[in-house]
Amino acid sequence: MKPFIHDNFLLHSDTAVHLFHNHAENLPIIDYHCHLNPKMVAEDHRFSSITELWLSEDHYKWRALRSNGVSEYYITGNASDWEKFQKWAETVPYLLRNPLYHWTHLELKTCFGIEDTLNAKNARRIYDKCNEMLLSPEFSARNLMLKYNVETVCTTDDPVDSLEYHTKTRNDKFKVKVLPTWRPDKAMAVENPESYRQYIDLLSKVSGIRIASFQDVVDALTVRHKFFEEQGCRLSDHGMEGFYNEQFTESEIEAIFKKVYKNGNGLDAMETAKFKTAMMLEFGKLDADTGWTQQFHYGPIRNNNSKMFNQIGPDTGFDSIGPCADAKRMAGFLDRLNSAGKLTKTIIYNLNPSDNAMVAAMIGNFQDGSIPGKVQFGAGWWFCDQKKGMEEQMNTLSVMGLLSRFVGMLTDSRSFVSYPRHEYFRRILCNLIADDVEKGEIPMSEMNRVERMVEDISYYNAKRFFRF
Amino acid sequence: MKPFIHDNFLLHSDTAVHLFHNHAENLPIIDYHCHLNPKMVAEDHRFSSITELWLSEDHYKWRALRSNGVSEYYITGNASDWEKFQKWAETVPYLLRNPLYHWTHLELKTCFGIEDTLNAKNARRIYDKCNEMLLSPEFSARNLMLKYNVETVCTTDDPVDSLEYHTKTRNDKFKVKVLPTWRPDKAMAVENPESYRQYIDLLSKVSGIRIASFQDVVDALTVRHKFFEEQGCRLSDHGMEGFYNEQFTESEIEAIFKKVYKNGNGLDAMETAKFKTAMMLEFGKLDADTGWTQQFHYGPIRNNNSKMFNQIGPDTGFDSIGPCADAKRMAGFLDRLNSAGKLTKTIIYNLNPSDNAMVAAMIGNFQDGSIPGKVQFGAGWWFCDQKKGMEEQMNTLSVMGLLSRFVGMLTDSRSFVSYPRHEYFRRILCNLIADDVEKGEIPMSEMNRVERMVEDISYYNAKRFFRF
Amino acid sequence: MKPFIHDNFLLHSDTAVHLFHNHAENLPIIDYHCHLNPKMVAEDHRFSSITELWLSEDHYKWRALRSNGVSEYYITGNASDWEKFQKWAETVPYLLRNPLYHWTHLELKTCFGIEDTLNAKNARRIYDKCNEMLLSPEFSARNLMLKYNVETVCTTDDPVDSLEYHTKTRNDKFKVKVLPTWRPDKAMAVENPESYRQYIDLLSKVSGIRIASFQDVVDALTVRHKFFEEQGCRLSDHGMEGFYNEQFTESEIEAIFKKVYKNGNGLDAMETAKFKTAMMLEFGKLDADTGWTQQFHYGPIRNNNSKMFNQIGPDTGFDSIGPCADAKRMAGFLDRLNSAGKLTKTIIYNLNPSDNAMVAAMIGNFQDGSIPGKVQFGAGWWFCDQKKGMEEQMNTLSVMGLLSRFVGMLTDSRSFVSYPRHEYFRRILCNLIADDVEKGEIPMSEMNRVERMVEDISYYNAKRFFRF
Repeated sequence: MKPFIHDNFLLHSDTAVHLFHNHAENLPIIDYHCHLNPKMVAEDHRFSSITELWLSEDHYKWRALRSNGVSEYYITGNASDWEKFQKWAETVPYLLRNPLYHWTHLELKTCFGIEDTLNAKNARRIYDKCNEMLLSPEFSARNLMLKYNVETVCTTDDPVDSLEYHTKTRNDKFKVKVLPTWRPDKAMAVENPESYRQYIDLLSKVSGIRIASFQDVVDALTVRHKFFEEQGCRLSDHGMEGFYNEQFTESEIEAIFKKVYKNGNGLDAMETAKFKTAMMLEFGKLDADTGWTQQFHYGPIRNNNSKMFNQIGPDTGFDSIGPCADAKRMAGFLDRLNSAGKLTKTIIYNLNPSDNAMVAAMIGNFQDGSIPGKVQFGAGWWFCDQKKGMEEQMNTLSVMGLLSRFVGMLTDSRSFVSYPRHEYFRRILCNLIADDVEKGEIPMSEMNRVERMVEDISYYNAKRFFRF
Repeated sequence: MKPFIHDNFLLHSDTAVHLFHNHAENLPIIDYHCHLNPKMVAEDHRFSSITELWLSEDHYKWRALRSNGVSEYYITGNASDWEKFQKWAETVPYLLRNPLYHWTHLELKTCFGIEDTLNAKNARRIYDKCNEMLLSPEFSARNLMLKYNVETVCTTDDPVDSLEYHTKTRNDKFKVKVLPTWRPDKAMAVENPESYRQYIDLLSKVSGIRIASFQDVVDALTVRHKFFEEQGCRLSDHGMEGFYNEQFTESEIEAIFKKVYKNGNGLDAMETAKFKTAMMLEFGKLDADTGWTQQFHYGPIRNNNSKMFNQIGPDTGFDSIGPCADAKRMAGFLDRLNSAGKLTKTIIYNLNPSDNAMVAAMIGNFQDGSIPGKVQFGAGWWFCDQKKGMEEQMNTLSVMGLLSRFVGMLTDSRSFVSYPRHEYFRRILCNLIADDVEKGEIPMSEMNRVERMVEDISYYNAKRFFRF
Repeated sequence: MKPFIHDNFLLHSDTAVHLFHNHAENLPIIDYHCHLNPKMVAEDHRFSSITELWLSEDHYKWRALRSNGVSEYYITGNASDWEKFQKWAETVPYLLRNPLYHWTHLELKTCFGIEDTLNAKNARRIYDKCNEMLLSPEFSARNLMLKYNVETVCTTDDPVDSLEYHTKTRNDKFKVKVLPTWRPDKAMAVENPESYRQYIDLLSKVSGIRIASFQDVVDALTVRHKFFEEQGCRLSDHGMEGFYNEQFTESEIEAIFKKVYKNGNGLDAMETAKFKTAMMLEFGKLDADTGWTQQFHYGPIRNNNSKMFNQIGPDTGFDSIGPCADAKRMAGFLDRLNSAGKLTKTIIYNLNPSDNAMVAAMIGNFQDGSIPGKVQFGAGWWFCDQKKGMEEQMNTLSVMGLLSRFVGMLTDSRSFVSYPRHEYFRRILCNLIADDVEKGEIPMSEMNRVERMVEDISYYNAKRFFRF
């Protein structure tokens, strides 16, 4: 019997096979947005077990376990590594049609050479085999990145971060470029005055700027932005429930800042929205002035389960998809930057797939001919980061914009073995385009263009776009 | 020529054929949500004609007739049974691609053994043949249920209902379990103070609880809930435009209750929302305390055509799909029950398919590992209860949750011949999963699991989940 | 190698081939909604170059060029015709999977007999060839319409328009019916009091009605409506962000009118909404009284890029898809007309495809059996006017309504060579229905009905529905 993950997995036509193997498979990986821990790269982390590698931080898997009726004890609780792995292995057969099923076996195959499909029966054997392999230096954090032909990764970092681990990794002449990404969410997290004050004080300290006004915050951020630039950063990232676009005056913003920072008072909804608008505009200007790319990841609703939030905190699998966005507010915000000549290269990622068409059409409003695909509709993200989601994103982008200019895939992952998701994406991409060729909806005479298109989306578009 | 409805209808691969015929077709039916009239079961109703059976209560068909330009006289008017059937037969050929086309012919085949496709020409012959067959006791309400291998049905009942017909049916030792479902919509229908007062007075009477306060209402409902429990009820159901999640105090709710019930005054929108929130939370607690499953059918906008509403009343084919839900409100409501330790097994059915992803992700927030699939994304409902809608619901559930744990299909129907919709669903399910197997997206090595999965979704998941 | 656009382009089964070639291809075109310039028809315009024909007014192409990194100089700027064409030709290969790729080559083939796919290399040759052909009278505006077997077109016209060009064309006995459409958007464009006053004064002048009140506006519009009727107009069209449905009194509306028209003062949001509700209801009544069809094109957000709006004005490629509609407001507005006995034949076109299901269900609320398909879910529009969008619209209509009664395709175009979009639509329609036949989801025994259905949707439904 052919193994599940075989050469032509997901490639359903000869054209797909050709495109993937000859024009996608061997290109390096530019993982321009992820959540790798830079310390683990700097220290070339070694994994104690496949449980650590797979299950210690992956809230996708945690959700699946809970949905399968597994008790929290075996998920984030005190069960042993083996017990946790065992529960996972028992759950895997129930994941048919879920992306975790494909990811799990792609990772077993590409990382460990295991071709069996994981289940309760072979769990112990696979657990032991993987753990044994993990003992080898070949499976250190850095060697995993090299194994997967990674050229560049961009981690996700706070403006106050020292970036010491990035520096160390660079000084070590590690072949893979490990670059920081500017994620200044906390600089506008005014919902909690106390933690906001602490954050601003820290920002003041690391920037060397005494902060007494909103303008001082901007100055301090500018210092840090410059520092990130020097460290090779070329992207920012913003995690947000939605876009902000309120009118405000400078003095209003100063008053709001004073209220929350100096007086430690909570803000009302309109003050918060005004403040966030002002801050987002400043973020946008910083990026425009340096020619970076800004990323907007919008649309989740977070920490929906208070009980579990109180027990195990945020980012543990209790976030989900929020409502569709306010299209006019999104347009209005982008327009303000654009009118000010400060709309830099931009990627918009929606979480609710019902926003796909709106976003795919929105980006066209701000293409200015300066470079191809200046404003991008981001790859299927989080809940949409699977075959169905990717295909929907690419199909919508195709009919409302230019798929050819798409900067393609990113892992958005904390894991050192999530790189096969690039392979997964490339297989899906090749199969999708090949299907059009096979049906005659793309002319055979354009095969050269199709091949370039596949290469571009897999690698070259990102390379040209981000200019790391 | 092969008949339209043949053995392998909708089964487009060998794997689909295998799965359906060997692992789905012969399993009994658990129809855990329907609108059958319990009196018709209790009295083992005999149908006077196929017009009564098909057209007397089916607002899906009424909509189709109106869309086809048929006058109301032949729909809900005074035309004869034959004339009404004739108009329906004339309309059927115009229903190609509409689910009514498939349902009609599945019913003709499975109930009457008729393989012709219905049209104006053969209408009289088919009408006469069906009517003749309906004379036979074989076609009584109960015998139809037996014919279709129905094991359990859950009707939809008001808390004030005596359930006398359920009792009678049970006392008759009818082989099919006919259980009530607790649908307390009227207990929070405060929009009309007059009819609300009448309802509460009736509730008081049947419960034996004197009602002077909101708490008394809850007490009266508790009495009735216990009664329903004794009658075998294991589910509640709530029909709602959307979710409610306002903050309130006990005294506010008592004041609102007094205003509407005692004083007979209309409530403003916020009072209504507070009252409904409070009531929904109480409903949730009642279900949690007994381990029932609660169902939320949300999203319709009703009685959109005032002219026809005034002529022929509600539920006559003038409801349609409302806007997408407020995701945060839904999350907030579920979270309140969950935080109170009172979130029972839950099924959420959306009407607007643009909410599919939101709901499929939402349920993951409240899976607690106590049982598999504790919170369910309900099967394609009403306007979405067709091949496209079912596939979209299952595909979305698959990628965002665990299809394996899905409790599957229900008819939501008033009809004694709607059971082939389970067959329809199972065919679609088998075909969908088989397609993944054929494409290698599910490994061949997992065929045993796939077979179990099909059996589970067709029957066993519901059996284990509801514990009738 | 088979040319890209060949006989069976997009037809993926024998049934599709049969349906298209025998039941769709040769039927005349009724283009019941477009933006052709009536003057160009009246004067039988000759095109100076393919740049004029293709690129001078097509904001779809402009968006694609900008997205591909082409500078505005080559789009709406002062570059020469050849340079503009060259940039377009360079961009075309990057449009794979975008509808422009198919449209471009359908137009090259059907209009100019060119089978090559356009690119930078053959640009000059194709440019010269097309321009040479355009010198021939065969390629005049009128002859292009005849070439494409156009029977009727409905342009889009303002109530104050003299319709002199329609008159001239009619007097010339031009074989194609060129009818006006009543598009009274400006009669409710109260956002700008100054331009509104000018418009109302013009309306007064052309109608001969002295305008001092809202009722006078209605009277003046009634005069013009009658004039349009005499000129063969049978449709109205309304471009709107969304529906309006506020409660108002007559005296409120008169006061609002006075405020904006007489006093030249801006209105607040509620006044605007009330005024627009009142006006839309009047528009609806005018159409109902004459038995016209009203069209609602709702859902765009416009002029999102202020910088470009200031440079080159509206309708230049900076509009996009707005949020989903308020379903209750839409229902409420239609219900008011219906309750007043003034709901005429209606077509609703949504721009956000996430509204498809809502609209497809909505229309069913107002089918009254007077004629088949009285209320229509309009064909995929603007951003949704492509294969994916058309298929989604037709699939949704099919399962929630009656595809058989669909009035089909329109170009919505300014171009005299956009008629192959009817061919494109018909190919897609035939392929879609054929696929169901091939899979046995439509019975073979109904092939006659299927053939009629294809003919109806391609041509006869529109013919019967609009009664030009």
